[in-house]
Amino acid sequence: MAEKIILTGDRPSGPLHLGHYVGSLANRLDLQNSNKQFVLIADLQALTDNYDNPQKVRDNVLQVMLDYLAVGIDPRKSTIFLQSMIPEIAELTIFYLNLVTVNRLKRNPTVKTEIKQKGYGENLTAGFLMYPVHQAADITIVKGNLVPVGEDQLPMIEQTNEIVRSFNRIYKTDTLKEAEALISKVPRLPGTDGKAKMSKSLGNAIFLCDSADEVAKKVMGMYTDPNHIRVEDPGNIEGNTVFTYLDVFDPDKKMVEAMKTHYQRGGLGDVKVKKRLIEVLNTFLDPIRERRNTFAKNPEHVMSILFEGTQKAREVANATMKDVRKAMCLDYTL
Amino acid sequence: MAEKIILTGDRPSGPLHLGHYVGSLANRLDLQNSNKQFVLIADLQALTDNYDNPQKVRDNVLQVMLDYLAVGIDPRKSTIFLQSMIPEIAELTIFYLNLVTVNRLKRNPTVKTEIKQKGYGENLTAGFLMYPVHQAADITIVKGNLVPVGEDQLPMIEQTNEIVRSFNRIYKTDTLKEAEALISKVPRLPGTDGKAKMSKSLGNAIFLCDSADEVAKKVMGMYTDPNHIRVEDPGNIEGNTVFTYLDVFDPDKKMVEAMKTHYQRGGLGDVKVKKRLIEVLNTFLDPIRERRNTFAKNPEHVMSILFEGTQKAREVANATMKDVRKAMCLDYTL
Repeated sequence: MAEKIILTGDRPSGPLHLGHYVGSLANRLDLQNSNKQFVLIADLQALTDNYDNPQKVRDNVLQVMLDYLAVGIDPRKSTIFLQSMIPEIAELTIFYLNLVTVNRLKRNPTVKTEIKQKGYGENLTAGFLMYPVHQAADITIVKGNLVPVGEDQLPMIEQTNEIVRSFNRIYKTDTLKEAEALISKVPRLPGTDGKAKMSKSLGNAIFLCDSADEVAKKVMGMYTDPNHIRVEDPGNIEGNTVFTYLDVFDPDKKMVEAMKTHYQRGGLGDVKVKKRLIEVLNTFLDPIRERRNTFAKNPEHVMSILFEGTQKAREVANATMKDVRKAMCLDYTL
Repeated sequence: MAEKIILTGDRPSGPLHLGHYVGSLANRLDLQNSNKQFVLIADLQALTDNYDNPQKVRDNVLQVMLDYLAVGIDPRKSTIFLQSMIPEIAELTIFYLNLVTVNRLKRNPTVKTEIKQKGYGENLTAGFLMYPVHQAADITIVKGNLVPVGEDQLPMIEQTNEIVRSFNRIYKTDTLKEAEALISKVPRLPGTDGKAKMSKSLGNAIFLCDSADEVAKKVMGMYTDPNHIRVEDPGNIEGNTVFTYLDVFDPDKKMVEAMKTHYQRGGLGDVKVKKRLIEVLNTFLDPIRERRNTFAKNPEHVMSILFEGTQKAREVANATMKDVRKAMCLDYTL
């Protein structure tokens, strides 16, 4: 089987949290060992809905880098790169915009949902509507053929592949490659409030950079079984976020099973379960925090790692653009 | 008065014709003497409605260059540059797309009219809808503050200035400058069929590169007064395209007046007037053709003139982008 080229990444709009770890970071640690993995810090896409707060995006570029290095994304194995420093992505996006109708963009289910959630209405910006085209450029410029996504992002891969097919057909080439979605099989980690999605904006996230005390405080406030009032009452473990987290993070599966049985029978208080989760999470986060703190002492070094990766990605981007420009009769040399 | 920076140019979708000469080229010959003039060959914008025919666009880049040099646009005075070779324009467009709503783009009267004319309907591409944003990048990246336009293109300047104001306000800067429209006072040259607009697609154009014979043939078929059947009949000069052209191109104004009087009185045949116009046009076009033929012998040289201009424009673009990136907190150095 041909080597897979993976394109994955994040928008630097906030620090990464446990949901990111479970949903994608853990996966990347595996994937980087047996594939060519590109990890994109998509700062221009973060600007599509943060265009009036560019300093926030900039600050989070460093934070996301620190999170990456702390969890073990290894710059010797993964090419981490910064979107805004690859002008070829912008060029390719402009080329692709001719191959996509406005109506097609409006029908994109992911974007449709987001537009509703964000309540854009009349104020929908052109930048937001066409970020899927920008994403298609992200993926194809590094010739990514495997893109780890959640189920809800499948339309993005479809949009990318439509563009790839149109481009290859219209410009009589096979230079662009379709991408395959690698759908995460891990169920999404709920927020500390029990809501389906952990997210900074919902205020229900435990961040990789949270201190041990912050983690303790957040876990103590976590959503459990609202009907489990007295310790001696039987408790429900379904939808009980503390147990969901234990299932994911506690390496001692036997102990988790024993606690579940005890909780359901009655006689195990929430505080005891939460204390176990605090211990488990801090044991998990301690080495991550430690690496993060070490890297955080030298932000210039961290950024230089990002810039080195960006240089590497840019060489790949330039090779792709050479083929793209040739196919489009735009292969001039200054 | 501060020096004016002019941004003007053409889409390379066909050779330039007499309508272009009267409407804009003549003006540029004047303007280049007392201003800093940038002349853009907008090949990426030509691709918005020719994306499936990139070879045509490429071929016309050379043709338009030949037309420019033939009429006397002087690369020592004007910076002629190629859009697709300035990736910074694409980057700036991506930045601007966040500052413009989709609805605003749909309300642009110029684009609205074009969408109707071209019958896009459901097939309106994202690239076509947002070309005004791309144009805003063209103008502002060279800090253009004077843009020669026809009355119908005023909405483009408005759109550009809206983006400039949004950018400066949101990113707390004054780096971008609003542009002023320089509205052409010359009435539009009608097509040889008497229709309001001379255009390649209407098949009613006399091209700067037409041979003397082609010009003669086109003039002999020109629209005059449909009721002027016999030579001895009085003829109408209003809307009589041959006289409109004589008014524009014949340096002997007295003779034109005499012919008009004779024609209105009766006794002057269309053929005689047309023969005069053929003589006038070929006298006008002869030196243009000669220069064109000389340049056409060495297309590499012509392209090198374009590339030199593009290099110069790119330096200006880079300086603008430095300020833009700083304002947007994107001023990284690899």
